[in-house]
Amino acid sequence: MKAIAVKSGAGKPELIEVPDPVPDDGEALVRTLRVGVDGTDHEVIAGGHGGTPEGEDHLILGHEAVGVVADPNGTSLSEGDVVVPTVRRAPNGPNEYFERGEPDMAPDGQYHERGIVGKHGFMSEYFTSPEEYLVPIPDELAEIGFLVEPVSITEKAVEHARASRSAFEWNPSSAVILGNGSLGLLTLAMFVDSFDRAYCLGRRERPDITIDIIESLGGTYINSNETPVAAIPDVYGAPDLIYEATGYAKHAFDSVEALAPNGVAALLGVPGDWEFEVNGGKIHREIVLHNKAIIGSVNSHVHHFEAAVDSLQRMDDEFIDALVTGVYELDSFADAFVNDDTTIKTAVQFSRYEER
Amino acid sequence: MKAIAVKSGAGKPELIEVPDPVPDDGEALVRTLRVGVDGTDHEVIAGGHGGTPEGEDHLILGHEAVGVVADPNGTSLSEGDVVVPTVRRAPNGPNEYFERGEPDMAPDGQYHERGIVGKHGFMSEYFTSPEEYLVPIPDELAEIGFLVEPVSITEKAVEHARASRSAFEWNPSSAVILGNGSLGLLTLAMFVDSFDRAYCLGRRERPDITIDIIESLGGTYINSNETPVAAIPDVYGAPDLIYEATGYAKHAFDSVEALAPNGVAALLGVPGDWEFEVNGGKIHREIVLHNKAIIGSVNSHVHHFEAAVDSLQRMDDEFIDALVTGVYELDSFADAFVNDDTTIKTAVQFSRYEER
Repeated sequence: MKAIAVKSGAGKPELIEVPDPVPDDGEALVRTLRVGVDGTDHEVIAGGHGGTPEGEDHLILGHEAVGVVADPNGTSLSEGDVVVPTVRRAPNGPNEYFERGEPDMAPDGQYHERGIVGKHGFMSEYFTSPEEYLVPIPDELAEIGFLVEPVSITEKAVEHARASRSAFEWNPSSAVILGNGSLGLLTLAMFVDSFDRAYCLGRRERPDITIDIIESLGGTYINSNETPVAAIPDVYGAPDLIYEATGYAKHAFDSVEALAPNGVAALLGVPGDWEFEVNGGKIHREIVLHNKAIIGSVNSHVHHFEAAVDSLQRMDDEFIDALVTGVYELDSFADAFVNDDTTIKTAVQFSRYEER
Repeated sequence: MKAIAVKSGAGKPELIEVPDPVPDDGEALVRTLRVGVDGTDHEVIAGGHGGTPEGEDHLILGHEAVGVVADPNGTSLSEGDVVVPTVRRAPNGPNEYFERGEPDMAPDGQYHERGIVGKHGFMSEYFTSPEEYLVPIPDELAEIGFLVEPVSITEKAVEHARASRSAFEWNPSSAVILGNGSLGLLTLAMFVDSFDRAYCLGRRERPDITIDIIESLGGTYINSNETPVAAIPDVYGAPDLIYEATGYAKHAFDSVEALAPNGVAALLGVPGDWEFEVNGGKIHREIVLHNKAIIGSVNSHVHHFEAAVDSLQRMDDEFIDALVTGVYELDSFADAFVNDDTTIKTAVQFSRYEER
């Protein structure tokens, strides 16, 4: 079968031929429908993040997949079920985090991530997965099911952020999302329902397709060239929640001061090393005297995928149509990895739901 | 009646004469037994923190008090009840934070703190307080009731720290307390019960009375001159919880990296401005990839005072005896404000429980 992989050091994805996968006991065989592309894929391709499976010279890409069960192989799934796979797998037999259904909390060395580090991803015509890592979704989401994984990332981050504020009565009214990429926009589509005021910060100038989406959702665009993070309280009021999705480390530090009292910053971006000067005393003091919290969040587990299905069902078709700027067939797969100002979210199409 | 106050700019406390307080409706009159002294008092005296009530040139000190109800004045309290007052009061009539019993979550400008900022403290022979801010405690705690307030500070910080870890199964086994002052030692006395391993970091060399206490509690002393915060994981294993009580800002930043995966740092110290360089990218990345949390915590409310009473009752008498290095009568009150290597916790005695 065909697969999209990156060879070590190649710096770009290519179409390769690999043997059809054979499901083990407890695994189902899944025919791949679509697989999304995100910033992590670009980092993996560039070699800045992730790694190939042990002993191999290439990694099959893709961690945002949706497929159809082709062979239940004795599992409780049925042929034709539409499913979304979770991403983490235990490297050497199950460990405590996987056993309790929280692989997203496993530390370094106790997980592989399909399509990212240590285990092949889902960008192939078929893939296999243990049943417990396949989340059934409604048939009508078959086309956009590749958005379940990114939305699940936000479900987890928000769950942890809210938990950090659960020891008192927290009545947040405003949230700022740092980053107007596909994850930022998906998050905004969720936040416009749960906050009175929802903002999305980026560095694009008008006219811009992401700004159009932000405004059509009812959100407010913050141009970071005009209003840097530290200036947000003065211009828009101090937000109760900041969702950091850029991985720009200075944003994380500026967020602490920009937050309203009792607010929380959820960090999701993954920056490289970067030394800079901060007023560490002021940041520390601000966290203490205003009961602030900063939480980090990576990956997600089955419950977050299930919550993401609900969130995705509530989103407008028009928003999804604007967000997904391209779905590419295998013969033009390289277009799915182009990242320019006309690109928001892309996916590769491996097969169609209606096919048999 | 006699009171201990600091005049603006004086830099030291003095004994003054003030009129006896008269309770308003809903307030009880309390005869003061003992009032503790802590680092905040020293900051208030030095002028680095807090402020006098509006229109006055002095502030009566003291926020860690225990007393006996002298006149219930129509409240549900009874004469002779031993009570501990909470610290925050609403400045201009009740606001939402006070109404819901969470004055500790009120932002700047929406609270006064008795003995610290905007309202006189408890270092006087009598004080009055609305009934809802007087926490009854068992008679047998009358002598050490001035420790309820500092213990309540830890109850709140730990409640918020645990809340931040409540979205997953968190099984912490080790905690490091930064700071071997009285709050650090009281916290250690609580942590030796709830963590397999509890450490307390300071910069004292042996022989030292705080190190003796740490070891008699079953804790481990970490000498920061030998093992700075960043080196703790290598020497003692990465802690699940770090409790920062020094207000040394670099500790807060080093704590993020020292924490075990999924760990939480609770910050309580209040540093001044201090600019320094950090590897902000690494700190940000570490928070994200290992699901870490940092929470700030200030002040405490009635439920924390109630929890503190339980915690205090579980502490050994020997520990309390070693912790309280001096209780001084009014005629030698200045000794309670001496802070040297033989001092851990001091208090001023205003009257005795047995008196009438």
